[in-house]
Amino acid sequence: MDERRLEYLIQEKKYVTLKRELEDMNEVDIADLLESLDIHTGLLIFRMLPKDMAVDVFSSFSLEQQRNVIRLINDKELKDIVDELFFDDMIDIIEEMPANIVKKILLHSKEEERNLVNQFLRYPPDSAGSIMTIEYVDLKKHMTVGAALAHIKETGLDKETVYTCYVTDMNRKLEGIVSLRKLVISNEEDTIEEIMDRDVIYVHTHDDQETVAGIFKRYGFLALPVVDKEDRLTGIITVDDIMDVIDQETTEDFQKMAAMSPSEERYLDASVFNLAKHRITWLLVLMISATFTGGIIRKYEEVLHTVIVLNAFIPMLMDTGGNSGSQSSTLVIRGLALGEIDLKDATKVIWKEFRISIVVGITLGIVNFFRIYLFDNVGVFVSLTVSITLFVTVVMSKVVGGVLPIIAKKMKIDPAIMAGPLITTIVDALSLMVYFAIASRILHI
Amino acid sequence: MDERRLEYLIQEKKYVTLKRELEDMNEVDIADLLESLDIHTGLLIFRMLPKDMAVDVFSSFSLEQQRNVIRLINDKELKDIVDELFFDDMIDIIEEMPANIVKKILLHSKEEERNLVNQFLRYPPDSAGSIMTIEYVDLKKHMTVGAALAHIKETGLDKETVYTCYVTDMNRKLEGIVSLRKLVISNEEDTIEEIMDRDVIYVHTHDDQETVAGIFKRYGFLALPVVDKEDRLTGIITVDDIMDVIDQETTEDFQKMAAMSPSEERYLDASVFNLAKHRITWLLVLMISATFTGGIIRKYEEVLHTVIVLNAFIPMLMDTGGNSGSQSSTLVIRGLALGEIDLKDATKVIWKEFRISIVVGITLGIVNFFRIYLFDNVGVFVSLTVSITLFVTVVMSKVVGGVLPIIAKKMKIDPAIMAGPLITTIVDALSLMVYFAIASRILHI
Repeated sequence: MDERRLEYLIQEKKYVTLKRELEDMNEVDIADLLESLDIHTGLLIFRMLPKDMAVDVFSSFSLEQQRNVIRLINDKELKDIVDELFFDDMIDIIEEMPANIVKKILLHSKEEERNLVNQFLRYPPDSAGSIMTIEYVDLKKHMTVGAALAHIKETGLDKETVYTCYVTDMNRKLEGIVSLRKLVISNEEDTIEEIMDRDVIYVHTHDDQETVAGIFKRYGFLALPVVDKEDRLTGIITVDDIMDVIDQETTEDFQKMAAMSPSEERYLDASVFNLAKHRITWLLVLMISATFTGGIIRKYEEVLHTVIVLNAFIPMLMDTGGNSGSQSSTLVIRGLALGEIDLKDATKVIWKEFRISIVVGITLGIVNFFRIYLFDNVGVFVSLTVSITLFVTVVMSKVVGGVLPIIAKKMKIDPAIMAGPLITTIVDALSLMVYFAIASRILHI
Repeated sequence: MDERRLEYLIQEKKYVTLKRELEDMNEVDIADLLESLDIHTGLLIFRMLPKDMAVDVFSSFSLEQQRNVIRLINDKELKDIVDELFFDDMIDIIEEMPANIVKKILLHSKEEERNLVNQFLRYPPDSAGSIMTIEYVDLKKHMTVGAALAHIKETGLDKETVYTCYVTDMNRKLEGIVSLRKLVISNEEDTIEEIMDRDVIYVHTHDDQETVAGIFKRYGFLALPVVDKEDRLTGIITVDDIMDVIDQETTEDFQKMAAMSPSEERYLDASVFNLAKHRITWLLVLMISATFTGGIIRKYEEVLHTVIVLNAFIPMLMDTGGNSGSQSSTLVIRGLALGEIDLKDATKVIWKEFRISIVVGITLGIVNFFRIYLFDNVGVFVSLTVSITLFVTVVMSKVVGGVLPIIAKKMKIDPAIMAGPLITTIVDALSLMVYFAIASRILHI
C-alpha cells in the first residue's frame, strides 16, 4: 500500500479493507505511512492495529511522532504500549522525551521496572549497557532440550531473540550459551549442560559500543551477552541494534574528519545553532593555524615582489598538497578504524606512502611542467621551480598524511582528527617553505 | 589461548592438550592464531582440528593463508573442505584465487555444482547475486510444523541459517517465509500455510548490494531472500555478510570523498602502483582546476602589487572556505547515504546551510577582524577587507557544499564525489574573486 491508496481508503471510509491490508504489511512500512498523515488521522489508523503490531509500529516511529502519539493517547493505551515495549526501546524513548512524558510513561510501570530503568539510564552513553536489552531466554543447565523448547514455546514471543539462549546459575552467572539451531537438532532427552557452548564471548556493561560492533563483525554473531562487574548476565545486544551503532560510529568519523565535533542528531532535526556550534571551534583553530602560512608569505614578500608570477601557483600547490595528504590520511584512518592497519604497521605505512608519493609526485610534476611551460608562458625556470615544489609537496604531504593518524592513535587521540583539514593546514605551510627555498635557489633571488 | 601458550604447547609436543584447548575456541580466533605460525606448523595444527571446525577455520583464513593451505594439502583434504564450504564462501575463494588453484578446487566438485559456480560468477560485482548463498531451509506449504521441524533437525547443520525458512512451490516460486521462532511456538499439527508470512520482502539477483544493506538496516532482518527474473528463489543473504557490505560501501564513500577512485583491496595488501593509480586521476583533475584560481590571481596581479600584504591572507581565506564547505558537504553526503536526507529536502538543506553560515561567518569574521587588526598591524581597511571576504566565503562555501551533493544525486552521480577536494577547488576560485572585488572597493585600488 502506498500513500495514495491509503488516502483513498480513508476517504472512502473502507476501514475493514484498510485494516486487512495494513496487517499484511511490515511494521516499519506502516510507521512510515502513518507519519505521512496528519497526526489525528494517523492516530485513528494506529488505533485500528492489533496490539502486538501497534507496539512494533510505535517503536518504528520517529521521536517526533512518538512524542505526539504519547500526548494524544489515554493512560490505558499508553500502559498497553509501555507493557509490551522491549526494554531497550523504552530506555531509548525515555532518554529522548521531555520530563512530563517520561513521568507519564513511568507512572505505568511497576516499581521493579522503574528501578531497572534508573539503573540503565546510569550506564555511560555509547557503552554496551546503554544499548542492551533484558528480554533474553534464560535456561538452566540441568534442563532437558525438550523442557528448554517448551520454555521457549511459552515465553518466546516476548523475547528480543530466541535464537541464542543463555545458561545461568543461581547467581545469574553466565555458564554457557546454546543456539536454537543446536536445540532443534539435538535429542529431546539431552541436557542443556551436554550441548551448551561454555567458551562464551561476552562484553561488560561499560565496554564501548565500538568494541561491541567490532566483535559482531569479527565473529558474525546474532547476539552478544553483556555481564556486570561480578560477571552476572545483565542483558544482551542483538545484531540489528549493532547496525545502528556502526552507522553512528561511522558518521562520527565522517564528522571528525571534516573538522566538526561529532553529534548524534539527524541533520534535518538539528537546530541551526547546534549545527553551527559543532562547526565553529575547529574552523577557528584551523583559521588561526592558517596564519602561520600567511606569515611565511609575508616573510618572502621580497621574492614574490621580484617574480610576481610565482604567486599564481600558490593555490595549485596548496590544494594539490592538501588533496594528496587527505588521500593518505583517509586510507590510514579508515584502515585503523576497521582494524586492517595496526600500530605496529607504522613503518610499513610510511614506506608504502613514500613509494606511492614518488610515483604520484613524478607523474604530477611532469604533467605540470609541460602544462605551465607550454600554456602559461612562464619560462623554463619558473616551470621547473613550480614542478619540483609540486613533487616535494606530494611526497611530504603523503608521508605526513600517512603517519599523523598513526601517531594520534599511539597517543590515544582519535585518528579521525588527523584528516584533510588539519593535514591541509600543516602541508600548506611546509609546501610554501619548500616553494620559496627552491625559488631562491633556481631563480637566484 | 594466546600465541605464547600455543608455542609452548607445540614446543613441548603437548598435542592432546593443544587439541582440546583449540576445540574450546572460536574458529575465527583459531584462524588468527594459526596465521601467526609458519605455514608448516600452522598446517600441522590445522590438520588436528575436527572436520567441521577445520572448514570454519579455513573460511576465516586470509586469502594469502587459504592459498598457501590449498597449495600444501592433498586432494582428499581439499575435497573434504570444498564439500563442506558454504557456497558463498566458495565463490569468494574462487574469485580471488589464481587459475591453477581454481582448477584444483573445481576438480573436486560435482558437475551440477560447477554449473552453479559458473552461474554465480556471472552476477555483476556488488550485486545481491554476488553475495548470496544457496544453503537455505526450503519448506512446502502443506507440511505440518512437526514435519518442518523434523526436516530442520535433519538438514539444519548444513544451512547458513535455519532461523528464517522459505516456503516455495513446485516451480521454486517464493510463496512465504516462516521464522524458526514461529515454528517453535506453533502447534505441531498446524500447517506451514497457516502460519507463514506471505508478505515477503525480497530482492532481485541484480539489485545493488547497497540497496540490500539498506533493507537490512531498515527492517532489522537476519536474512533476506533473493529471487531471479522469474521470481524463483535462487539464494539468501544473511546479516553477517551484510556487515561486510556496509563496511565496504562506507570505505568506498571515504575514498571518493578524499578524491580517490574506490578499491576493495585492503591498504596493506594493495600494491604501490595500484594505490598510486587510484589517486592520480583525481589529483590531476583537481590540479588543473586549481589553475583557474591561479588565473584569477594573475588577473589581479596589479592589486596584489599595490597592497602586497593582501597576499598573506590568501591561504587563510582559501583554507577556511574549503573547510567550511567540506563540513557542509560531508554532513549532506552522509545524510543522503543513510537516507536521512532526501532529494525533496533540497530547499530545506539550502535554507539551513544559509542560516548556519550566517552564524559561523559572523563569528569567524569578528574574531578574525580583531586578531589581524590587533596583532598583524595591517590597518583597519585591510582588516575589514579580509574579514568581510571571510564572511562571504563562509556563506558561499556552506551553501555550495550543501547543494552540490544534492545536485549530484539528482543527476544520478554519486554525491560522495562532491566532497572536500572538489568543493575546495570551487570555493577557492569564488573566494579569491570576492576578495579582489571587495579589496578594490574598500581600498580604492
